[in-house]
Amino acid sequence: MNDTHISLAHGGGGELTRLLLSERVIPKLSNPLLDPLGDSAVLPQPDGRVCMTTDAFVVQPLEFPGGDIGRLAVCGTVNDLAMAGARPTALSLAIVVEEGLEMSVFDRMIDSIAAAADEAGVPIATGDTKVIERGRGDGMIITTAGIGTLRDGVNLDAGRIVPGDVVIVTGLIAEHGLAVMSARKGLAFETELLSDVAPLVGLAGDVFSSGADVKFMRDPTRGGVSGVLVDLAEQTKLSLDIDERALPISAVAQSTADMLGLDPMTVANEGKAVIVVAEAEAEAALRACRANPLGTKAAIVGKFTDATPPLVELITRPGGRRMVTRPYGEELPRIC
Amino acid sequence: MNDTHISLAHGGGGELTRLLLSERVIPKLSNPLLDPLGDSAVLPQPDGRVCMTTDAFVVQPLEFPGGDIGRLAVCGTVNDLAMAGARPTALSLAIVVEEGLEMSVFDRMIDSIAAAADEAGVPIATGDTKVIERGRGDGMIITTAGIGTLRDGVNLDAGRIVPGDVVIVTGLIAEHGLAVMSARKGLAFETELLSDVAPLVGLAGDVFSSGADVKFMRDPTRGGVSGVLVDLAEQTKLSLDIDERALPISAVAQSTADMLGLDPMTVANEGKAVIVVAEAEAEAALRACRANPLGTKAAIVGKFTDATPPLVELITRPGGRRMVTRPYGEELPRIC
Repeated sequence: MNDTHISLAHGGGGELTRLLLSERVIPKLSNPLLDPLGDSAVLPQPDGRVCMTTDAFVVQPLEFPGGDIGRLAVCGTVNDLAMAGARPTALSLAIVVEEGLEMSVFDRMIDSIAAAADEAGVPIATGDTKVIERGRGDGMIITTAGIGTLRDGVNLDAGRIVPGDVVIVTGLIAEHGLAVMSARKGLAFETELLSDVAPLVGLAGDVFSSGADVKFMRDPTRGGVSGVLVDLAEQTKLSLDIDERALPISAVAQSTADMLGLDPMTVANEGKAVIVVAEAEAEAALRACRANPLGTKAAIVGKFTDATPPLVELITRPGGRRMVTRPYGEELPRIC
Repeated sequence: MNDTHISLAHGGGGELTRLLLSERVIPKLSNPLLDPLGDSAVLPQPDGRVCMTTDAFVVQPLEFPGGDIGRLAVCGTVNDLAMAGARPTALSLAIVVEEGLEMSVFDRMIDSIAAAADEAGVPIATGDTKVIERGRGDGMIITTAGIGTLRDGVNLDAGRIVPGDVVIVTGLIAEHGLAVMSARKGLAFETELLSDVAPLVGLAGDVFSSGADVKFMRDPTRGGVSGVLVDLAEQTKLSLDIDERALPISAVAQSTADMLGLDPMTVANEGKAVIVVAEAEAEAALRACRANPLGTKAAIVGKFTDATPPLVELITRPGGRRMVTRPYGEELPRIC
């Protein structure tokens, strides 16, 4: 097949669709679940309760420093499962392509999906491809869904959080959102920042295996660390004191955020976790994070208190206090 | 919330996203899996092997005679599970909305999703919503994924098909594709045709329970009945004789297809199944179909033979023979 660009006919469900899949997709994603190519994949009976999650990815541009929409689509969904205490067992992959997309871009995205799925250790079990008319579609939109099996002994429940419990952030924040913005048309600026997009299955497993009583884990994507912390205060009806000096952030990310007028705590991450553990085991959980290559910069950033009303407060570098709020709308559109 | 149109901020993951979901989506789709609103849903351990499937829906227009993209997105995924011999247990729902979409349209689509999920008896367990810029998105794109548990005693395997096995089509063909085209801008024509979009869980269950040895079941969506039959000939390396006089099609659908220059066998259906059963039990399977409200017009349309090379041949009304081929590209773009 020598096509250089995607055409509408590639999505028609006919011979061209079959060729696109059989020549450019299936060989790269090949695994025993996908290869029968029915409309559904059949998986063995799970050994425990099942987690299910989905995300639609509309990031622009499709390729950005440190990643692309393919890697993002795999990691985003895998991470939602990992954060729920599940071992991912299968992903589904639905691709909507815009007519006219260069076939070389399509090929690179499939390569990237294959590599990320391999890195995360999860098969693409089933998929779908549609093509929409030129000018209607933004290049490529990818939606992944994932299922996983809950780990034994994991008891994630924000309702169990009590004053004194500790918040860990597993590494440098804000790098995904800032890296995507740096590549955005009309805004492009020079930076050495790379997206942190990565699968967190291993890191989460290490923390669960550390013996710490893990009460909560979430990847701070849209809405950033602030969004997660505000959710936590609302759910627990407890307050949070966050130490700005302890927040892991690189000088480059801080200055880039300052330049753009953004609060880095509201900027999306795609390879970090916010973890809440009982105070007694906080050091054990922190050590488990730091021993993982994706968690070397992990830090304890704050703790829960019983101050009322329930608020998230940032103890700033100069020693002041500032309330942390959920971003209202869209500070950085289309970053995932 | 008095917004009349979707704005980019509704997809930002901030306060407006939370309001959109909590006021316009969650109350309508409410169920015990969805309500905790984490990034993942937790389901009980399945009682058997798990089926997983996904589809992206890009139909234009979003609303068409007999259905809309919301109903289509639920039924399409539920039907893939039903055709695989699974009982659907949960759906995920990822919505990509175009900035500027009227909120009333968004609301109607959520209502339609809720009604279809209810009709199919399957909960929406988890979801995601993104907004993309005006002019980039085509109103709304919905991707659903579904999981289900395989029924006991079902042994769907095209490899078991032998000469003499019988092909059943469960009702009037081509109505979905033609109904969508009738509503398409630039092509609009008067017709009483309605899309057949419907969940086939009950019909499939009735056929499996009939005692017939069901060897294959698929819903003929993109590519139509022709696409399924050609796939079958390729997989089984057997030939198929299809009797045009037996094919269930309404006079209106036939004349509409003739007017558009389309072969109705290549036009998409969204509420029909192609079923292969052993000859001895064909009548039992047919009776089971006809006893279901969605299968009253079911018919035996052909049978497998050992003629070589493996081909699908249509015995036409005048008594001639014509080879049935897979549509090459896109006869009817954007019909699902």
